[in-house]
Amino acid sequence: MSRDRRSLADALARIEQVRERRRGSFYLHDEHITLSHGSGGKATHNLIEGVFAAELSNPILDLMEDSAVFSFNGTGERMAFTTDSYVVHPLFFPGGDIGRLAIHGTVNDLAVAGATPAYLSAAVILEEGFPVSDLRRIVASMREAAEAAGVAVVTGDTKVVERGKADGLYINTAGVGPVRSDAALSSAGARPGDRILISGRIAEHGVAILMAREELLLETEIESDTAPLDGVAAALLEALGSDVHCLKDPTRGGVASALNEIAIRSGMALAVEEENFPIRADVRGACEILGIDPLHMANEGKLVAVVAPERAEEGLEALRGHPMGRAAAVVGEVLDEPPGVVFARTGIGGQRVLDMLVGDALPRIC
Amino acid sequence: MSRDRRSLADALARIEQVRERRRGSFYLHDEHITLSHGSGGKATHNLIEGVFAAELSNPILDLMEDSAVFSFNGTGERMAFTTDSYVVHPLFFPGGDIGRLAIHGTVNDLAVAGATPAYLSAAVILEEGFPVSDLRRIVASMREAAEAAGVAVVTGDTKVVERGKADGLYINTAGVGPVRSDAALSSAGARPGDRILISGRIAEHGVAILMAREELLLETEIESDTAPLDGVAAALLEALGSDVHCLKDPTRGGVASALNEIAIRSGMALAVEEENFPIRADVRGACEILGIDPLHMANEGKLVAVVAPERAEEGLEALRGHPMGRAAAVVGEVLDEPPGVVFARTGIGGQRVLDMLVGDALPRIC
Repeated sequence: MSRDRRSLADALARIEQVRERRRGSFYLHDEHITLSHGSGGKATHNLIEGVFAAELSNPILDLMEDSAVFSFNGTGERMAFTTDSYVVHPLFFPGGDIGRLAIHGTVNDLAVAGATPAYLSAAVILEEGFPVSDLRRIVASMREAAEAAGVAVVTGDTKVVERGKADGLYINTAGVGPVRSDAALSSAGARPGDRILISGRIAEHGVAILMAREELLLETEIESDTAPLDGVAAALLEALGSDVHCLKDPTRGGVASALNEIAIRSGMALAVEEENFPIRADVRGACEILGIDPLHMANEGKLVAVVAPERAEEGLEALRGHPMGRAAAVVGEVLDEPPGVVFARTGIGGQRVLDMLVGDALPRIC
Repeated sequence: MSRDRRSLADALARIEQVRERRRGSFYLHDEHITLSHGSGGKATHNLIEGVFAAELSNPILDLMEDSAVFSFNGTGERMAFTTDSYVVHPLFFPGGDIGRLAIHGTVNDLAVAGATPAYLSAAVILEEGFPVSDLRRIVASMREAAEAAGVAVVTGDTKVVERGKADGLYINTAGVGPVRSDAALSSAGARPGDRILISGRIAEHGVAILMAREELLLETEIESDTAPLDGVAAALLEALGSDVHCLKDPTRGGVASALNEIAIRSGMALAVEEENFPIRADVRGACEILGIDPLHMANEGKLVAVVAPERAEEGLEALRGHPMGRAAAVVGEVLDEPPGVVFARTGIGGQRVLDMLVGDALPRIC
C-alpha cells in the first residue's frame, strides 16, 4: 500500500479506468421508472448518470458532489448550492417529521461541502384535502429546525395537486452558504492510506422509518437520527483543515453508497471493518430481522470522513469533542487497488465486496 | 395625484394601513387544502401569508419578493435566490413542456429581481411507471432551455414515489445569480405617477394549457409564451437603471395578481387601461368562452414593469428594442389613493376593482 500522493494525471487515469470498467452499467436500460430508481443504490446512480448527468453535463455538475461549489460572481468567495426533495413516508415518525428532515437534509449537504449553511428555500407540493393542522405542524417543525441550525428560509413556493396526485405533501429545500476557507473537500480526494471515520451510530433513520410504517413490530424505541451536521463538520475542519479529504452524509443508500461514491470518484479501493461501526443493538437486531445490511440503511445525522492517516486520531478527538460525534470511530482505510471497489472485512478475517444497494428497494426513506 | 417621492416613514405607514384593512383575510381559515390554494389568487396568498410567512418570518422572507436578495458573505455583492416547483398538467403542451417551463420559471424569478441568472438546481419527483423516454425528452428540453438562457444546472436530486402518488413527474428548480449593480427593485417601490408597462401579449400560457387539456375545443394554434426574461429585463435596466422601480413576471394568477401584489406592498393604488393590454384576438376569444378574465391568466414570458413617469417612453423603447418586447405597451399608472387597490378602466370610461383571482381555480397551470 503506497502512501504517496498521486499526481492529478494519475488520478484522472484511474477515474477513466473505473469508468471503463463500469461503462454501460451507467446507461439506463429500463423503459419505465421503478421504485428501485429512488432507493439511492445502483439503479438511482444509473438514472442520475445515464439521464441527468449525461444530458445536463457541465464542469460543476460533473463532479457529482452533494453540493455544487463555485466562485460567486468573481469575488473569489466559494459558494455551495444544493437541493433535495423529500417524499418520506410516513410524514411523522419517531424522532422527527418531513419538515425537520427537509431542513436538516439541505443543511447537511452544505455542511459536507465544507460550507456554513446560510439561506434555504422551501417549496411545498400539497395534495388537495391535506389537513391544514398537519401543515402548520410541519412548518413549525421547519422553523424550529432552521433556528437550531442557524439558517433562514428566505424564499418559497406552494403548489396544490388534485386528490390522488401526491401523498399528503412533498417538500423541496435548496440551500446556499459560503464555503469555509480551510475546506478542500472532494469525493475524488481519497488517497492511499487515508483513514475513514464515522461520526456516530449508523442505520437509525432507516430503521425508524420502517418501524413507523409498522413493517416491523418490535417493542423498541428507535428514533430517527435526523440532526444538523454543520457543527460537527466545522469541528473536524477546524481541527484538521485540508487534511480532511472528503466528507459525506450517508443518507439514502447508507454508508455503503457513500463509500462506493468515494471509491469510484477517487479511483481507490476502500476497506472497512464491519465491527468498527457503532450501532445500537436493537438497530442491528431490526436490520437482521429485515434482512437488510445496516450499511445500506439511511442516516440523517451522520458524517463519513476521509482524513490523512497521520491526523486520524486528532480527527477522532475533534469529532468526539462535539455532542453530535460522541460515538465516532475509525472504521477503515483507503487502498490503491482495485480502483472503485469497497470491501467490508469481518471479525474473523473474512472479506466481502460491499456494493451499493441493489434490487430490493427501500422506497421513500427520505 | 401627487408625484412627490414619499418618505420611508410614510411608505411604512401606508403598508400598515393596508395590513390593517386586510387583517384577518390573510389568516387561513380553511381546515383542508383545496385546489384554490394553488391558483395563485387570494387563497394562495392566504395560505402563504397565514402559514408560511407567519411561521418562518425573517427580514428577507417578509419582503415576499419573487426572489430573496441578500449580501453574499459580507462581500457587498448582492445575490438573488429563488425556487419554484412545477406540477403543470399536461407535461407536454403547445410551445413547451414542464422541463422548459421549470428552467424559464426560475430564470425569470431571478431576472425580475434584477439578477443575472447563473446557476440552477433541478430536483425531480418521479411516479413509478413513468416512461424513461418521456423523462429523456423533458431533460433534453431542460438542457436546451438552460443553454439558451445561459445558465447551468449544477446540482440535482431524484426521488421516486409509488404509482398513484404523483402524476408522472414534478420538477423543482431553484436558482441563484448576482444582482446587477444598477437594479433597485422592490414590489414596494411603486410611487404615485409611475407608469406601468407590459412587455408583450398576455394570457397565452394559461390559454395554451387549458386548450391542451381539451377543456376548450377551438381550431387555433395558441402556444405557451414560456421564454427566458433575463435579456429583456436587462435591456430595460440598462436603459433606465434605478428608475425601474419594480419588475414582476405575471405567472400563476396573471397580471391581476402581480399588480395587486405591487399595490399591497407599495401601499398605492394602481390603475390600468384594459384595452391597452396587447392580446391576440384568439386568446381574447378563448378567455371569453372560458369566462376567465385574461388579466387572471398565467404568462410565462412577460414582464410587468413600474417605472418613473419621465422615463416611461424611454423604457417602452428599450423593451421594444428587444425581440421579447416587440409588443410592449404602457398599460397604466400608479395613484396614491386608495392604498392596496387595483382598478381596471374600460374604454367607455367605466372602472372596476381588479382583484386577485377568487374562487374558481385554474389548477396546475405551472
